[in-house]
Amino acid sequence: MATVDATTAESGKAAAPAPPAPAGGFPGAELALRALLFAVTLAALVVLATAKQTVLFPVPVLRAVMPMEAKFNHSPALIYLLVALCATCLYSLLTALGSLRPPTARTLFILLLLDVFYAAVMASATGSGGGVAWIGLKGNSHTRWNKICDAYGKFCRHIGSSVFLALVASVLLVLLAVLNAYSLYRRSR
Amino acid sequence: MATVDATTAESGKAAAPAPPAPAGGFPGAELALRALLFAVTLAALVVLATAKQTVLFPVPVLRAVMPMEAKFNHSPALIYLLVALCATCLYSLLTALGSLRPPTARTLFILLLLDVFYAAVMASATGSGGGVAWIGLKGNSHTRWNKICDAYGKFCRHIGSSVFLALVASVLLVLLAVLNAYSLYRRSR
Repeated sequence: MATVDATTAESGKAAAPAPPAPAGGFPGAELALRALLFAVTLAALVVLATAKQTVLFPVPVLRAVMPMEAKFNHSPALIYLLVALCATCLYSLLTALGSLRPPTARTLFILLLLDVFYAAVMASATGSGGGVAWIGLKGNSHTRWNKICDAYGKFCRHIGSSVFLALVASVLLVLLAVLNAYSLYRRSR
Repeated sequence: MATVDATTAESGKAAAPAPPAPAGGFPGAELALRALLFAVTLAALVVLATAKQTVLFPVPVLRAVMPMEAKFNHSPALIYLLVALCATCLYSLLTALGSLRPPTARTLFILLLLDVFYAAVMASATGSGGGVAWIGLKGNSHTRWNKICDAYGKFCRHIGSSVFLALVASVLLVLLAVLNAYSLYRRSR
């Protein structure tokens, strides 16, 4: 009986002129994830932008010390990470404000595309930053690239934390894409 | 009249027991993209795995030459790229075979999730491989990491081509995710 009732109700709904789109979406979860994404990317930005350390290296021949500075903008990979973090931070803020009202199917679709795009960009920036940070941490004996983290400890902690937060941001963006995909899937059944 | 007819047909369809799911999807485009993804990842794998070069460096003190080998597995970032390419190559083959029959909404949803996941993995692997390849190509004067591509030209061409093909694979995976998202969107309207 319950099945018949449900079917009747469904056919009734279909026959009504221009039925309102089902609510779909998970506004609470989406807003929370986007707010978290904003916090994480902002933290990563601050940590990366403040990655700066000057170390005094002794020069025995001259009986002097030479200051050597390490900054994030000495590496193109870390500049790319900064730009990607900036873009994602702005994106998360705008979409968090936009997710306050219930989404239409079209909005869900566009948000899904943007989430996938930003997830790919953040993942690639995390990869490139992480790859360079790993060389800084461990060096590479084959290419004679020496590790620098024994001398620039504070700088490396900043870079490492920033890469870790960027990884968290990538995972959050994938989760947001999954959430929007699930909302679309629920509507399509 | 047409509207009324369509509405009646729709309500009739809704009332019928277990209506067949609409076809949705773009099986032709999807199969083509997945076949292209397979070809690209396989080519990238072969190019990366064969990246190997031995260069003879003269040692004037000993009046001899010393052979120095460069191989992709000297760098963790390139090993990660190889593993990601292997996984994506296998994934593209399996899903290409699976996309021969018309997908259900559930299949589209699961494929979308997997595409997003693999896109993120491939993007991060491309980023990390590209970051390391860039240091090999340009060096970094601040950290005194010397470029190696002036000596290991053939090796660097292999790595560069592989990273480029991995980038193409990432773009293809994003396109596949977009395609599946659009199919879900079309069904949800």
